[in-house]
Amino acid sequence: MSVPRSEQAFLDIIDRFFPENSPAIHIGRGDDCALFSCPSSLCMTTDLFVEDVHFRRSYFSPEQIGHKALAVNISDMAAMGAKPLGFSLGLVAPRDVSTAFWESFFRGMAALARRFDLPLTGGDLSLGDKITASITLWGTPEHRVLRRGQARVGDVLFVIGPVGLARAGLLLLEKGDASGAFPACLTAHLAPTPLVEQGQLLATIPGVRGLMDVSDGLAQDLSRFLGPGLGADIILDAGVIHPEVRQYCAQVGLNPALFCFMGGEDYALLGAADEEGLIHTCKLLPDTWRLGRVTAAGLCLNGKYIQVQGFDHFAQD
Amino acid sequence: MSVPRSEQAFLDIIDRFFPENSPAIHIGRGDDCALFSCPSSLCMTTDLFVEDVHFRRSYFSPEQIGHKALAVNISDMAAMGAKPLGFSLGLVAPRDVSTAFWESFFRGMAALARRFDLPLTGGDLSLGDKITASITLWGTPEHRVLRRGQARVGDVLFVIGPVGLARAGLLLLEKGDASGAFPACLTAHLAPTPLVEQGQLLATIPGVRGLMDVSDGLAQDLSRFLGPGLGADIILDAGVIHPEVRQYCAQVGLNPALFCFMGGEDYALLGAADEEGLIHTCKLLPDTWRLGRVTAAGLCLNGKYIQVQGFDHFAQD
Repeated sequence: MSVPRSEQAFLDIIDRFFPENSPAIHIGRGDDCALFSCPSSLCMTTDLFVEDVHFRRSYFSPEQIGHKALAVNISDMAAMGAKPLGFSLGLVAPRDVSTAFWESFFRGMAALARRFDLPLTGGDLSLGDKITASITLWGTPEHRVLRRGQARVGDVLFVIGPVGLARAGLLLLEKGDASGAFPACLTAHLAPTPLVEQGQLLATIPGVRGLMDVSDGLAQDLSRFLGPGLGADIILDAGVIHPEVRQYCAQVGLNPALFCFMGGEDYALLGAADEEGLIHTCKLLPDTWRLGRVTAAGLCLNGKYIQVQGFDHFAQD
Repeated sequence: MSVPRSEQAFLDIIDRFFPENSPAIHIGRGDDCALFSCPSSLCMTTDLFVEDVHFRRSYFSPEQIGHKALAVNISDMAAMGAKPLGFSLGLVAPRDVSTAFWESFFRGMAALARRFDLPLTGGDLSLGDKITASITLWGTPEHRVLRRGQARVGDVLFVIGPVGLARAGLLLLEKGDASGAFPACLTAHLAPTPLVEQGQLLATIPGVRGLMDVSDGLAQDLSRFLGPGLGADIILDAGVIHPEVRQYCAQVGLNPALFCFMGGEDYALLGAADEEGLIHTCKLLPDTWRLGRVTAAGLCLNGKYIQVQGFDHFAQD
């Protein structure tokens, strides 16, 4: 097995997959800093993607690791309704990872970058025990930005993208079940699609009051989205739960509504809108589904008040 | 020992040390992206700072780890002659690191951030085995930018800041010698000072043709600075080598010139200028010292042609 034998060998792989031909980039990789032209308002996000925390090499392909490391960042940009413009990469690479692995990793990352026309302007490489990708992505709001904490009592809560699928995918993969009975679950976990065009369209609709991406599960993210002093009355039933999630929950004996509410790594978009905004949204984005309504207090799921916690890395077991 | 028990506990520490009061930041930490006003040209750099690769907890204080993680990024900005404006942080945190450690870590980082008026706009937290800080820093060139690869045959090579000190500091610390006989060496390794004002001044001097920060040692960085098709004739003698480095080399029986040439983590600024530019530089920045001259080929150190390699993480032992 061949491994990159020098930093330069590593950089050569990156150069092959990430051509430097963006007109906005005046100085690309290889100097102390990149230099680029940028609009007067910049959105910026940083997300980590860490081996054995966010992914495992045993069931992620190298392409999927490269793809998802970038996808989770792009999803944050989508959640502002902004257009991504470029990114930088801090990459920790264990010494024993093969050149072939890195070629596939960068192929996966570059395919997604190309889809959104994103140059890789620079970054840093280091040895280390676990593959760790730290990506900083920037972009610009072409209309207004869509924030959290802007919803009002009576607003409709809507979601674009499935919830619960990726959680089922994770549980299946962790149990070693990649049998193929749940292809949508596996794909949702292994190769999520950032909803950039959807976020940008939502930013054009006046009645849409706020947006975020559901990365830690609705249980945790819904209260972050609403902010203090608000609650929600939501419905998660057979009409909105993906058939594979219903099938999975039936098989393992879990409540599908609670399962979807816990979720995690959904990378769905959660928004709030007035009634007119929702109608407009459903016209432009037919995949939009109605989650429920913003209330003055408490969290009501399928008619019952509940108290639950989503995923928190640092929570003690 | 108390450890942060939730992501929120972690964020509360960060909020205490990094107030969000910068007028350019419209959306700070806590949304999917930060949103800020920025100038039309942006410099950007990403640097990793990884436990047991770039630092050890056994001899770095938590303050020094927080300081240096940011300092190495600021040094890249200094090397463009640019003014740093803000940064984001991807932080991998092992579960067993105490709240007190993180308070000191962020205190050290915040003290340096305050010195350059840098808001922390956001980032990401993850569990992981080794402390890993991935910082992306942006800034703007207030004059022109100073690049690598701009030197011409006959230019004078100059340096601001010592070379070799940090390498001696590293070797002393790795041997467990923090006796205090080499305070400048230890400080150079543990708490380097980014030369931002110096870089910005250099960008105002027309005869200065290029600049970079010497992070991997002159042996590696000098050829990166010159680019292909150029060489250098340089002098590293008692007149320019720090007394502590001379004393250290005498003690361990190493050639001080070669030792300084190898260097590593110097975070000194290496530049090229015409004669007039050098005179101007020495007037504005009296600590500037003359390294040598750009030639058409080869590397001549103290009158002898040499071939050496600097530090490369990925080079096989």
